[in-house]
Amino acid sequence: MSPVYQATASAPVNIAVIKYWGKRDTKLILPTNSSLSVTLDQDHLRSTTTSRADASFERDQLWLNGKEDEIKPGSRLATCISEMKRLRKEVVEDKNLAEPKISQYNVHIASYNNFPTAAGLASSASGFAALVASLAHLYALPVSPSTLSLIARQGSGSACRSLFGGFVAWQMGSDAAGTDSLAVQVAPQEHWPQMQALICVVSDDKKGTSSTSGMQRTVETSPLLQHRIKYVVPERMERISKAILERDFDTFATITMADSNQFHAVALDTEPPIFYMNDVSRAIIALIVEYNRLSIANGGGYKAAYTYDAGPNAVIYALEENIKEIAQLIVSYFPQKPGEFKDVLGLFGAGAADVNVHAKVPVGFNEAVAKKFEVGAVKGLIHTRVGDGPRKLGDEESLLAESGVPKTLA
Amino acid sequence: MSPVYQATASAPVNIAVIKYWGKRDTKLILPTNSSLSVTLDQDHLRSTTTSRADASFERDQLWLNGKEDEIKPGSRLATCISEMKRLRKEVVEDKNLAEPKISQYNVHIASYNNFPTAAGLASSASGFAALVASLAHLYALPVSPSTLSLIARQGSGSACRSLFGGFVAWQMGSDAAGTDSLAVQVAPQEHWPQMQALICVVSDDKKGTSSTSGMQRTVETSPLLQHRIKYVVPERMERISKAILERDFDTFATITMADSNQFHAVALDTEPPIFYMNDVSRAIIALIVEYNRLSIANGGGYKAAYTYDAGPNAVIYALEENIKEIAQLIVSYFPQKPGEFKDVLGLFGAGAADVNVHAKVPVGFNEAVAKKFEVGAVKGLIHTRVGDGPRKLGDEESLLAESGVPKTLA
Repeated sequence: MSPVYQATASAPVNIAVIKYWGKRDTKLILPTNSSLSVTLDQDHLRSTTTSRADASFERDQLWLNGKEDEIKPGSRLATCISEMKRLRKEVVEDKNLAEPKISQYNVHIASYNNFPTAAGLASSASGFAALVASLAHLYALPVSPSTLSLIARQGSGSACRSLFGGFVAWQMGSDAAGTDSLAVQVAPQEHWPQMQALICVVSDDKKGTSSTSGMQRTVETSPLLQHRIKYVVPERMERISKAILERDFDTFATITMADSNQFHAVALDTEPPIFYMNDVSRAIIALIVEYNRLSIANGGGYKAAYTYDAGPNAVIYALEENIKEIAQLIVSYFPQKPGEFKDVLGLFGAGAADVNVHAKVPVGFNEAVAKKFEVGAVKGLIHTRVGDGPRKLGDEESLLAESGVPKTLA
Repeated sequence: MSPVYQATASAPVNIAVIKYWGKRDTKLILPTNSSLSVTLDQDHLRSTTTSRADASFERDQLWLNGKEDEIKPGSRLATCISEMKRLRKEVVEDKNLAEPKISQYNVHIASYNNFPTAAGLASSASGFAALVASLAHLYALPVSPSTLSLIARQGSGSACRSLFGGFVAWQMGSDAAGTDSLAVQVAPQEHWPQMQALICVVSDDKKGTSSTSGMQRTVETSPLLQHRIKYVVPERMERISKAILERDFDTFATITMADSNQFHAVALDTEPPIFYMNDVSRAIIALIVEYNRLSIANGGGYKAAYTYDAGPNAVIYALEENIKEIAQLIVSYFPQKPGEFKDVLGLFGAGAADVNVHAKVPVGFNEAVAKKFEVGAVKGLIHTRVGDGPRKLGDEESLLAESGVPKTLA
């Protein structure tokens, strides 16, 4: 019996605090500015991918959540797979002729996201990171996460940041071929393990503009984007990296919120304008602004930082000591259907199936800054924390059956 | 019996297409950029003001909509009144000693807006313009509207643009004393009489940030505002002035929409961020974007231009030939309470008390760009057109009773 060449890996979601919006090269996915993100714990949100190479496979095939996804020639998916095969050949097979030439085999890939697409959480970052990580293990590549990030980037820009845990910068680079547009770790998760996140999954009536087409429209039509790229982001990248290294939450929070706002500002400065935030998103901003105002008025500092990607969901970064108070505040304005809050980190202790019993507004909070919404406006809450980078999983976690198709289909 | 020194004037509302947002001098109200507006017909929306000077009056007094408004020392209102008295003295009394010295008398002023404050339409522009215009007639000042605009500007920045009809630029000027920060007419209403407007009065849950405090927060905290001021607005002022002179609606519309979006973008780039548009405002933008797309796809040009001031109301500029179709489209998505649409220009002919019967979406329109809202989301529609500047009214229109208090109180 010939050996089975297979590997399984999982990869985390990341949520940017300095936003990526705009490509200078759409084929290679080279950004118009650097960006920086926090990697979220894959114990809660992750993509898992199994890759297998076999001489008997007739073509490369990929299944996402059990459904085959066509690998179109020239697509981003095809590029990632062929780039990984090329790496296998160059850094393994060409250097050691004893290594099996599995780069010539076709691959079967099964990928699974443990969070519903309906949640509106970008799965492309964790998905492409898991794909690249599983292929790197399959091919036994002796390369760094930064090198892998160069390939994940070509699948989905922000995927390059999911190759590391902790706090991660995507350096835009300057090379036209993209060889220096890669991810580096600013600090590992252990550096600031108190950093947690509360994701508010917001309902939306309308289908938003895809970020791929949206960001290019911004590049082509927004007069303000150029100023952001040239002057604002470089300075913010430096300041927030320093804030992370110094565990300076005040600076981290002010820059995070300012950059979320500025990303949505340049989206609005686009023709036609792009809106991702809705009235619920605005209300959450108003709550966090008031919550911080109160803390500062009481002699404290910032206690929460909101950020919004290309959709209405809020991600609220906060230190562990404040996250319970924030969750209490959010459910005061956005009651939850019992069971919609997965209290994985034990925020409210045992018996918190109905999170609404914990609704509470801090003393001195101006309750008039937002109206109280109906159940369903925020349709789910996810409490998580900073996490590690891609993990190699054991064969018992394989998503592929012996036959080479996903277990769910076998 | 001594003569009665009294004058009554009315002044129009104006809605900017290049937005004023930011002061370089908050006392003199000197803006950080030039702006440009369309004056709306005062047959529909207007402020009317009667001013009287009398030796028997014990102090300056002003009533707004029948309610006394205190004239605080050093206030904008006090500044406007004292500046008008100074002009009377300098250009009339000091030059012709036979003229009565009425600049030494106290004044009684009654002002009335014919549109409800609840509509969220800025009344300060028409109000200060009517105040200055009535005092100019009372004092028989031989000065130009541009000279009066210097004084109206110190009451409320955008008021300076209501001293002219048609299309009006507020030139920011460069003098530290503000002597060159004034309004000039780009074109009179007769130049482009087909220009009409449909105002959509939008309900809002929350109290917005006042424009006075909001714009200064933007000046202090938005990194993008400086780019707008320095590079974007000067070029847009030139291009839209040319478009108006050439009656080029395509260019007028694209710049108008882009500048509305950019104003809201810099508001969003403020710390904490300022939002004036809500989900209803966003839906109206989506309708106009699709409406223009359809027209362009059919070989036509732009047919409508939205613009939003510091609130959720939409003002849609369009040429007369298209305004009926636009009103039909708006009521298709935003049904009206019967009677809430004042069809003063006879858009739907006789018997249109219930405008909803005219709901109609153009052939080929993608109806999925917005959801259909409930009655009340757009709580009123006002159809109007480009109009003339301040009017001198006859004594029969006086708001002051013989006793010197408003007729409504007499």
